Amino acid sequence: MEAKRAAAERAVSYVTDGMVVGLGTGSTANWAIRALGEGVKAGLRIKAVASSVASEQLALEAGIAITDFSALSRIDVTIDGADEVDPEANLIKGGSGALLREKILAYNSRQFIVVVDEAKLVDTLGKFPLPVEIAPFAAALTLRQLQRLGCQASIRHQGGERFVTDNANLVADCSFGIIASPGKLYEQLALLPGVMEQGLFLQPMVSRLIIGYLDGRVEDRWLQR
Amino acid sequence: MEAKRAAAERAVSYVTDGMVVGLGTGSTANWAIRALGEGVKAGLRIKAVASSVASEQLALEAGIAITDFSALSRIDVTIDGADEVDPEANLIKGGSGALLREKILAYNSRQFIVVVDEAKLVDTLGKFPLPVEIAPFAAALTLRQLQRLGCQASIRHQGGERFVTDNANLVADCSFGIIASPGKLYEQLALLPGVMEQGLFLQPMVSRLIIGYLDGRVEDRWLQR
Repeated sequence: MEAKRAAAERAVSYVTDGMVVGLGTGSTANWAIRALGEGVKAGLRIKAVASSVASEQLALEAGIAITDFSALSRIDVTIDGADEVDPEANLIKGGSGALLREKILAYNSRQFIVVVDEAKLVDTLGKFPLPVEIAPFAAALTLRQLQRLGCQASIRHQGGERFVTDNANLVADCSFGIIASPGKLYEQLALLPGVMEQGLFLQPMVSRLIIGYLDGRVEDRWLQR
Repeated sequence: MEAKRAAAERAVSYVTDGMVVGLGTGSTANWAIRALGEGVKAGLRIKAVASSVASEQLALEAGIAITDFSALSRIDVTIDGADEVDPEANLIKGGSGALLREKILAYNSRQFIVVVDEAKLVDTLGKFPLPVEIAPFAAALTLRQLQRLGCQASIRHQGGERFVTDNANLVADCSFGIIASPGKLYEQLALLPGVMEQGLFLQPMVSRLIIGYLDGRVEDRWLQR
């Protein structure tokens, strides 16, 4: 927890007056939101857009002004966590089910800062089941198409019911074990009808990777974008 | 109208007992639905899945049994119209706003039969604005990304309000004028976060193309799939 918090606070140090900030979803993003709220109380003037109803709620409680996403014309920086990070800073995201909005924010942000604790670092992506957001329409057929790509795929449930995203879609969790070629898989998933978004985030997407270690160290890697 | 109707009736002649049939959306698909309804009254036993609420309604009125799309395990044949067809049987679809479900049905069907009147035949796709279904979240940013691909893009309106699809998304109508390379554009759109589906349908997707001519002739082209 302290590792996530320290890394999240470092990320927030890159937010300056007047910025439009994208807010991720999940435990690490929550630390960033709380740290941003402290900044706002100390006088930082920003507007934010949230990747989920949960993050929006937390931001409002922290005193952060939320801007209407439909009128959004630019995003300066988005801060978000990840479920797995490989040595090239390719990511698996979407454990929290907010991958579609997170991807839109990351893609449209001038800077995308990813914050993780060291437990998220892996040599090869794929141990964490890849979340894929799919349309409810004919979901059983889309699930079968996903399985043909070589994974065990199942519709995510929560509290005994199908988990429904903020976009009224379903999430298929796809266990590949090892994703040998993230680039190839990315394209296969992007081209599959019924797939609304996928939890793979490939370089060059991350502009800065901040890693919190259990010993208190924070590693701050600037990546070209 | 007669050209569409004659072509749609030819398409329906390929539907046989026991089939699961995907129903398209739009004026030509409507002729097919009515013809299927006649078949059902004459004893044809089929189940159908509709690509839109409108088509489902029409099918029910025509006496066609609609199956629950969430439990769907196979589709034998889908019959649908198109807004433009090029000489290689690449299509622009989505004028009716049902492109996401139409694409899922077409992709998962053993046979995909496309029915048009001769007015839909073009040398090069692109005069008809390409419909792209996009997430409402940060839609202004996604619209700008679409414009960067070289089109005039605008959010579709209906009755003074934003048109909302059956999947609670928006439609961006993208006027390219001429789509020089449908394959390249397809990939660019598929990879764009915020794009849920696109109205380009590329070969090999169509298994049969049926064209109704104004002089009453019906051309029936079998395409490998």
